[in-house]
Amino acid sequence: MTQELVLQYLRSHHDQYLADLTEFLSIASISSLTQHHQDVRSAASWLCERLIKAGMTNAHLDETPGNPLVVGSIIGDPHRPTILIYGHYDVQPVDPLEKWVHPPFAPAVVDDVLYARGSSDDKGQVYMQLVALEAWWKTVGTLPVNVKVLFEGEEEIGSIHLSQYIETHQKDLRADFAVISDTPMFAAEVPAVCYGLRGLAALEISVTGPFQDLHSGVYGGTVMNPAHALASLIASLHRLDGTVNVEGFYDGVEVLTEKEREAFQSLPFDHDTFLDSIGSPSLFGDPHFTPLERIWARPTVEVNGIWSGFIGEGRKTIVPAEAHAKITCRLVPYQDPQHVLDVIEAHLKSHCPQGVQLQIHRGEGDPGTKTPLDHPSVLAAEQAIEDIYHKKAAYIRMGGSIPVVVTFQEVLQMPTLLLGFALPDENFHAPNEHFHLNNFYRGAETLALLWHYVSKKDGLQFRDSTR
Amino acid sequence: MTQELVLQYLRSHHDQYLADLTEFLSIASISSLTQHHQDVRSAASWLCERLIKAGMTNAHLDETPGNPLVVGSIIGDPHRPTILIYGHYDVQPVDPLEKWVHPPFAPAVVDDVLYARGSSDDKGQVYMQLVALEAWWKTVGTLPVNVKVLFEGEEEIGSIHLSQYIETHQKDLRADFAVISDTPMFAAEVPAVCYGLRGLAALEISVTGPFQDLHSGVYGGTVMNPAHALASLIASLHRLDGTVNVEGFYDGVEVLTEKEREAFQSLPFDHDTFLDSIGSPSLFGDPHFTPLERIWARPTVEVNGIWSGFIGEGRKTIVPAEAHAKITCRLVPYQDPQHVLDVIEAHLKSHCPQGVQLQIHRGEGDPGTKTPLDHPSVLAAEQAIEDIYHKKAAYIRMGGSIPVVVTFQEVLQMPTLLLGFALPDENFHAPNEHFHLNNFYRGAETLALLWHYVSKKDGLQFRDSTR
Repeated sequence: MTQELVLQYLRSHHDQYLADLTEFLSIASISSLTQHHQDVRSAASWLCERLIKAGMTNAHLDETPGNPLVVGSIIGDPHRPTILIYGHYDVQPVDPLEKWVHPPFAPAVVDDVLYARGSSDDKGQVYMQLVALEAWWKTVGTLPVNVKVLFEGEEEIGSIHLSQYIETHQKDLRADFAVISDTPMFAAEVPAVCYGLRGLAALEISVTGPFQDLHSGVYGGTVMNPAHALASLIASLHRLDGTVNVEGFYDGVEVLTEKEREAFQSLPFDHDTFLDSIGSPSLFGDPHFTPLERIWARPTVEVNGIWSGFIGEGRKTIVPAEAHAKITCRLVPYQDPQHVLDVIEAHLKSHCPQGVQLQIHRGEGDPGTKTPLDHPSVLAAEQAIEDIYHKKAAYIRMGGSIPVVVTFQEVLQMPTLLLGFALPDENFHAPNEHFHLNNFYRGAETLALLWHYVSKKDGLQFRDSTR
Repeated sequence: MTQELVLQYLRSHHDQYLADLTEFLSIASISSLTQHHQDVRSAASWLCERLIKAGMTNAHLDETPGNPLVVGSIIGDPHRPTILIYGHYDVQPVDPLEKWVHPPFAPAVVDDVLYARGSSDDKGQVYMQLVALEAWWKTVGTLPVNVKVLFEGEEEIGSIHLSQYIETHQKDLRADFAVISDTPMFAAEVPAVCYGLRGLAALEISVTGPFQDLHSGVYGGTVMNPAHALASLIASLHRLDGTVNVEGFYDGVEVLTEKEREAFQSLPFDHDTFLDSIGSPSLFGDPHFTPLERIWARPTVEVNGIWSGFIGEGRKTIVPAEAHAKITCRLVPYQDPQHVLDVIEAHLKSHCPQGVQLQIHRGEGDPGTKTPLDHPSVLAAEQAIEDIYHKKAAYIRMGGSIPVVVTFQEVLQMPTLLLGFALPDENFHAPNEHFHLNNFYRGAETLALLWHYVSKKDGLQFRDSTR
């Protein structure tokens, strides 16, 4: 079978992969530091040349006002499914440098673990994608799917030029779905398909009372204290059990299916270990859902910061003139961020005590994203994982947001498959970042098989015509 | 009548008083600035010499670790009532200097108003006390009461050495009551006896949850947010109508008598003017009491400051690790500060949500103070005011605290009569501080008559034996 040839190719080139990856990881492509500007460009060039060498002959750099994108595509047969692979070649800074056992840009292998900045986040996983493609081109000569790549150099500084680029290159980038390998598996030996992310809605509220801070002796008892008003507004947002007390907030929230709940339940999640890692005296939240369900599939309203009055050392007997709070909501798929902001605004206005004025500053909103569990990409990933890891894929979601996934959904109308092979404790933004090579190798094989299984699926409607 | 001689003396020395006061106010006795250290001492010496010249022959400076006290006493007949006069000769800084129409230490009279730093707070009123005594000594030769004076030079920097001095000089200072002229009348042409002050009880609370700020995507929904917990604790302290919702908080609070309520009602208090001066959209507080009653005779729990999490520009999607609040209560007479802190502590502990830890840091507590309305000093002041101002004295209280009054009550077991002749808008701590000379003159006359009327009262039990 052709895919067996591909796997054999992957299995017989470990030394080359390690040598190449060492080269790639030696480039200090730190996007947040201007002194590494040239290194970032070098990493882009290295990746582009390596893609061409692998077989993506039209790979090239596309300039942005910042760092270049590495893009390319191989559209073999427009009737086949088309996949967009996204990743990033820039890395985080390395401070504190003295905490690194091996220098961050001198990759070292110890016990089959590769230590280097960018090894797991995300250069190692980008290169893993590359070799999975290459194995097809070097053996079968062609891929069973159409593929486009989009690798950016500004992910660690907020992807500042990416959405604009996607907006203006929709035709070039559109595909049946996107694949990103920039996330961890659930745990060691628990390979996972991540099929959902939470969104975000932000607002800031200000409560104002008197013109200026008042002497609490001369005025105390005659005016509403803005700090009291703010506290009562914040307190009104939740019920005692932790659920959100805002009418309409849960509109659109999906009921978790039995299949999803069982999938989450089956994961090796240890309540005590989780709690110990946090340090709170106990966990807390909607008692109708488990902690994992609450992180992955339930929305939140979270105060990120509050301030009012005198916060220095000692005492100042005032009624503060104003009080403020920064609030963000984590949203789940099918919640409309603007509707959420609407209902919170209405709630706050109707709950604002008399004697103060309330200003609400609405911030951005991004929806949650989700790839249906029966989407061909998910089913194909499941098969590939089972073939390589010899176990059922875990279905997981993530409680955070990945902005590019929202852009893919909103601008390109396509879902994203998050299929990463890092481990949660591989120190992504910390000293001694590392990547387990056995996951690098098995990840590449899984991806190679993914293209095979995707090509067998019905239901991928998009037909690329950009050849 | 002897007191008529005294009044005539006072009325015939206006020019001398103005000349003397100009000299006194020209000394820049700013206690908070070290470069004025010598000026502060000069003011003390000036005052001491002037007291001796007036007739208090034993007046002298008593050193403290800081600025000296000016003390002295004339005990004519131990069977007569004994009064302690307290005031301060130090003044506030003058910044912003450019806002002064006349230089702060070059006293100027415009339309019978004397402009200078310290004119009303408090050098002008201290000197007013002095001339009232002097008039008796220069005419009758003796006072109808025994008198002690205690003038300090650190009032504007928190009276840092005063309570220690009072502790160690109890015998020297004890009297039937104290008189302080360091407060305003209720309004122009509304001379007032202030017979009550509020006390204070302070605490700081900290709510802690996770070890450190958490990523709200990765953890949000599983832990109690300390900012939410703090908000619910603060919100629990008050009912919707503004009354304090802490069991036992009102223990000991006196019921306002009909006489007091009528006295307050009769005052020219304009609700709209008051509200306009504050700037809040409306007044707020316990609906069973008027604003003046709430300021003067009802206790409060007031949050002075709150802080938690991220308060910089922009957005940080965290669950904060901790949240804090500074709280002070204004107490009324007969509320026990320690009991108030006890019941608030118990309330907070019993209302703290699960999933966080609460630390309570108890601060100081000072009780409210009150001089009974039928106290001989109050009745005598009423008579004196009526004789000079030709109107009924207003009975007022103040919502703030004056620490020395608490010390007099707690250490010397004596009440204080607050009989000041400044006006509320005379810019005490601001540029262009001033004092209406007609109140200076009438104030001196009122004080001179006060000694006369006090000497006629029964019921002053203290007999001085320190002659």
